[in-house]
Amino acid sequence: MRLKFRIVTSYINRGIHPTSTSTSKFRAAHDHRRNIYSTARKNPNKPSGNMPETTTLTGDKFDRQPFEALLKRRFFYTESFEIYRTAPGFKGDNRGLFDYGPPGCALQANIIDLWRKHFVLEEEMLELDCTAITPEDVFKTSGHVDKFADWMCKDPVKGEYLRADHLVENVLEARLMGDKKARGEAAKPVEVEDPANAKKKKIKVKDVGNVKLDDAMVEEYETILAKIEDCDGPDLAALIEKYDIRNPDGNGKVNPPIPFNLMFKSTIGPSAAAPVYLRPETAQGQFLNFRKLLEYNNNSMPFASASIGKSYRNEISPRSGLLRVREFLMAEVEHFVDPESGKKHARFEEIKDVKLSLLDRETQLSGKSTPKTVSIGEAVSSKMVDNETLGYFLARIQAFLLKVGVDPKKLRFRQHLANEMAHYACDCWDAELQTSYGWIECVGCADRSAYDLTVHSKRTGESLEVREHRREPLRIEEWQATLDKKKLGPKFRKDAKAVEGAVEALDQDTLESLAKELQEKAVISIPTAEMSDGKTQVELGQDLITIARNTRVETVRNYTPNVIEPSFGIGRILYSVLEQVYWHRPGDEARGILSLPIGVAPTKVLLVPLSNTSSFPPVIRKLGQRLRSIGISSRVDDSSASIGKRYSRNDELGTPLGITVDFDTLKDGSITLRERDSTKQVRASEDEVVEAVKSLVEGAETWEDVTKRLPEFLGQTGDE
Amino acid sequence: MRLKFRIVTSYINRGIHPTSTSTSKFRAAHDHRRNIYSTARKNPNKPSGNMPETTTLTGDKFDRQPFEALLKRRFFYTESFEIYRTAPGFKGDNRGLFDYGPPGCALQANIIDLWRKHFVLEEEMLELDCTAITPEDVFKTSGHVDKFADWMCKDPVKGEYLRADHLVENVLEARLMGDKKARGEAAKPVEVEDPANAKKKKIKVKDVGNVKLDDAMVEEYETILAKIEDCDGPDLAALIEKYDIRNPDGNGKVNPPIPFNLMFKSTIGPSAAAPVYLRPETAQGQFLNFRKLLEYNNNSMPFASASIGKSYRNEISPRSGLLRVREFLMAEVEHFVDPESGKKHARFEEIKDVKLSLLDRETQLSGKSTPKTVSIGEAVSSKMVDNETLGYFLARIQAFLLKVGVDPKKLRFRQHLANEMAHYACDCWDAELQTSYGWIECVGCADRSAYDLTVHSKRTGESLEVREHRREPLRIEEWQATLDKKKLGPKFRKDAKAVEGAVEALDQDTLESLAKELQEKAVISIPTAEMSDGKTQVELGQDLITIARNTRVETVRNYTPNVIEPSFGIGRILYSVLEQVYWHRPGDEARGILSLPIGVAPTKVLLVPLSNTSSFPPVIRKLGQRLRSIGISSRVDDSSASIGKRYSRNDELGTPLGITVDFDTLKDGSITLRERDSTKQVRASEDEVVEAVKSLVEGAETWEDVTKRLPEFLGQTGDE
Repeated sequence: MRLKFRIVTSYINRGIHPTSTSTSKFRAAHDHRRNIYSTARKNPNKPSGNMPETTTLTGDKFDRQPFEALLKRRFFYTESFEIYRTAPGFKGDNRGLFDYGPPGCALQANIIDLWRKHFVLEEEMLELDCTAITPEDVFKTSGHVDKFADWMCKDPVKGEYLRADHLVENVLEARLMGDKKARGEAAKPVEVEDPANAKKKKIKVKDVGNVKLDDAMVEEYETILAKIEDCDGPDLAALIEKYDIRNPDGNGKVNPPIPFNLMFKSTIGPSAAAPVYLRPETAQGQFLNFRKLLEYNNNSMPFASASIGKSYRNEISPRSGLLRVREFLMAEVEHFVDPESGKKHARFEEIKDVKLSLLDRETQLSGKSTPKTVSIGEAVSSKMVDNETLGYFLARIQAFLLKVGVDPKKLRFRQHLANEMAHYACDCWDAELQTSYGWIECVGCADRSAYDLTVHSKRTGESLEVREHRREPLRIEEWQATLDKKKLGPKFRKDAKAVEGAVEALDQDTLESLAKELQEKAVISIPTAEMSDGKTQVELGQDLITIARNTRVETVRNYTPNVIEPSFGIGRILYSVLEQVYWHRPGDEARGILSLPIGVAPTKVLLVPLSNTSSFPPVIRKLGQRLRSIGISSRVDDSSASIGKRYSRNDELGTPLGITVDFDTLKDGSITLRERDSTKQVRASEDEVVEAVKSLVEGAETWEDVTKRLPEFLGQTGDE
Repeated sequence: MRLKFRIVTSYINRGIHPTSTSTSKFRAAHDHRRNIYSTARKNPNKPSGNMPETTTLTGDKFDRQPFEALLKRRFFYTESFEIYRTAPGFKGDNRGLFDYGPPGCALQANIIDLWRKHFVLEEEMLELDCTAITPEDVFKTSGHVDKFADWMCKDPVKGEYLRADHLVENVLEARLMGDKKARGEAAKPVEVEDPANAKKKKIKVKDVGNVKLDDAMVEEYETILAKIEDCDGPDLAALIEKYDIRNPDGNGKVNPPIPFNLMFKSTIGPSAAAPVYLRPETAQGQFLNFRKLLEYNNNSMPFASASIGKSYRNEISPRSGLLRVREFLMAEVEHFVDPESGKKHARFEEIKDVKLSLLDRETQLSGKSTPKTVSIGEAVSSKMVDNETLGYFLARIQAFLLKVGVDPKKLRFRQHLANEMAHYACDCWDAELQTSYGWIECVGCADRSAYDLTVHSKRTGESLEVREHRREPLRIEEWQATLDKKKLGPKFRKDAKAVEGAVEALDQDTLESLAKELQEKAVISIPTAEMSDGKTQVELGQDLITIARNTRVETVRNYTPNVIEPSFGIGRILYSVLEQVYWHRPGDEARGILSLPIGVAPTKVLLVPLSNTSSFPPVIRKLGQRLRSIGISSRVDDSSASIGKRYSRNDELGTPLGITVDFDTLKDGSITLRERDSTKQVRASEDEVVEAVKSLVEGAETWEDVTKRLPEFLGQTGDE
């Protein structure tokens, strides 16, 4: 068995990222990409002994059960095709597919809207909307057809397919648990796939035997688990063989791992002869349109394109809710730069004092996990972050994440270790968000170099280069061969072209030695394509050819741009933010709150009539119209539930503000305005309240400002 | 040969919609749906003799060539994977796939944003985002797996596939053209598919022979062409046989038509055993979530859900640019109503005076094509439009289309003829936009009744009904059979359950006659499942059973809602609007303008420095930031092109406003503001101009208002 990586520390390996000495360029680059969206690095379900417990916004212990119940109850999202799952005779597979309900959908739309403003409009990026359906040739060129795969094993008896790394992981985890049990130590249940039910289930302590392992074996297992994500097929095959790893469902032997391509395949057109794939990333569409983008940008560099759209990955075993799914929304930027000058960024000055929490390479290699808090200016000047362009994007990514509600204490940027990166990349950082599943990679900021543009250009024969007029012409001294064309034709007739081609094909070194030879012998011999007399060699004398060292002046420079790619997994960000803004009223787990920032909250204002008196609905309707006319979304809750219950329901939906219409409203036109987090209320005229709502939504005022201006309402608040 | 439709008039049939007596519920309902998005009814490429020429916004003759060149030049959209099309050895099929470039993408985003505000927020609809990947079972239930197909023929020699109706059409058109040529009449070239090149080509007059047809034959051909879209497979087979229709490419005989399902198929999960399809509409995801939506809406009816997302149809022969494509953006509303009260609409009063251009059934049947302009209130009260709910949506659809820039003179609502509709529908109207391809169905407003909810509920066993407490309990008089359970057990022992079941299964009519029999004979015999003694009949005497007429009181009412579905093809709307807002400067075809409304224009403001003087960029940058901070998108054009050229470029992009910074700006801070359509300019301070831009974007002022307030600028405008 060959494990191809060096050991770092248990923390780094178990909780976060294994390191690898894998040298395959594609694997390195694309494993990275895969992990952004659909595969959390390291099984995110596995509780890590070293990882601190997750806490809620108010510092209570985070409990996933009531949190998930809240999301389900309020229809943030749901398993797609749920009613089919239990339908008689249903043989489909709906795992890893999720539908967003009204609040989830509004939250997603608001995050996207913010993303578009923050990146596309602010940076004048060129947004594209490309198709998901993609001809096979494109992904052959990019390398996805051959390499975008996971390893899986078949259990030939059960007919089940298991993701090979998960299989090894689950079995070794269960054995370690059995060992702990035998030693009388506390063991935690572990979630694993149950292929028979296409559902997650827990390996519980009671399910495993009491088998004590010797200490060396425990260490061996732990070492393997730490590095499992970096094993390729042969590594996994060796592990399965050596440790006699079997399908936990039935204990049957499994076949050796085979690669399973993660792209969904179909065919297009009536003949079914043209294979297509659903894109696993939006990037390729942007690369293929590079020439048109450059023209649109008046041939001026640098510039960035951007795309927001669905991508698809046929995961072998989707899990962890929204964190590893088969259809997901991405937002990607491709920032094209001149490889010579692209390390500088024109707007770096504006963000250089922004402080980031950076878990750099050096810290990780020393076995520590505490990030350094430094300004991005310092980080770039000390070379911790490779260059200004990368640094600029890290700061902009942080600003975006904070706007959508990320807790700054639960955000870090982790640098890729040297052997995690593709060989061409100079530096790569991921924005990771802390959740109950561990630190989740939500944004990747990678350097794709000129790889994609180069391979597509080569395949299609279309230039994807920038053609730039040099400010100062470049003078190149070089050997030049010149044929006397007047004599060439008559002498070689139909072979003249072949001779010309042969001369053109000569490189500088050859020309140099031929020049010497020509001077010495007055004739040279060069290889050609087969000529009419069958020869593949031609002799040229001084009468026909001259070879001299000349100076050529180039006024134009052609280059293929490098690409910096900040790439956002919107579903992952959405889920992580929901976890991070969740808390509950002190001492009452049943009263959950999602403290979403007002800018992304699904609904800004809840409108509540105090009771079902018939005088209230017209007032509420008018108020709703007034708010909509200034672009503020509201929602009426005129159900018969108590006012307290209606508030609680909307605290769970993350609605930041609530307006109540009561009997005093009918008398004096005053209404109350309630704030979600504090449950405090103020009372004022409709005009004043609408004005306050507007300035809160626009961010011109805080709730504290409003409470200073408007009188507090101490009547029945419904929150007691 | 059997042609299954009645003749209406040549105009109706040729230019617009054929009628059909096809009785298949599914075909009727789903043909309608298909045509909304991807198949324009009637070959839209075919110039119709009866159809008036399309004109530009200013009444000039519309010429598609310079218009399409403009869209391509300004990168509104492009064929996807264009650089692969000419790549050596590329065997893929990229037809019907389009990427939107920066202005197209921004225009699309603005249309969607407006749609969300106009429908989702204004009407408090429940927006969902469901997956495109769908298990096969779902589309088996909905009928799409069996019926969502077009007819196609294979040319066995060439190995080409041809859409059968297009084949017949192309061949007969060519013969008619040959006839015209022989008669010395003017003939127009016709675009047809060229399967060999996967490209459109024109049948030119010179390509067809001079074959004079007799007059009866000309009429026969024209009659067939008028009704071709309504032919099913056997009809088309008969036509191909009777008229010896062959593949124009090589003149080979073709095989009889076979159905080709238009959904893209793939498999999910590692075993490849679970087939999935890409959705051809977003509707099914909304139906499957009905129960959760109802709960989210506090179990209150009526309500609407909405979805915006990509759908996919594997068209046999995509054509007409964005009008028939394989991947497209839809926005769909499913408005769920109580079938008893759903014809009324709470907000109908608000829109009842809105005037619509209605091409009703009666007008079409009388062979005319002039729509009636009536208020929707009148249309509903005269029963031209079936009910308030449908009428409400028609008015709202019109309001939306006008906001995005539709020319009211090029908008009409066409009612489906009785035999175009599914049998359950009471009324259906399409919003059609006039373009150079004819009247294009861009929004369908269909009544899907309870069909989808019913079939999914039946298949899954999950209730998709509304359970409503009756205000007044319903009293139902009915026959009831009561078994004396004390005696039943001891007498029948293990067969007791079978006897009970048999009694429960009796219907009202049977019970009535059994009651009589029991009274007369004191004993009755009823059929059962096989009992332990092998008998399938049981005798029950008066001691065991009583049958009486009782009154049952129902306090709850269960019903499956009906669904009204306004369904928008965003790409079709986008393309049609672009055509409708296109014009050119008088006498100068090369200077095109897209007069997009400011609300949907890709960029609101162009920022132009007069020259490349280094003092200008900081001013421009600050101005851009200032505009962004108030949510207004701008774009800088600091290229070296003349100012006139830069304005023209942005007229083509539909940018409504332009700000120029010149040398006077550096002196006194004043800037000029130019309006796209009039090319008029005003000059004022930066504050005043920004304020004017804001009020123009918000719609608070018109350009005319602004010119009255701010002084006209008569300096060098760049537009001369």
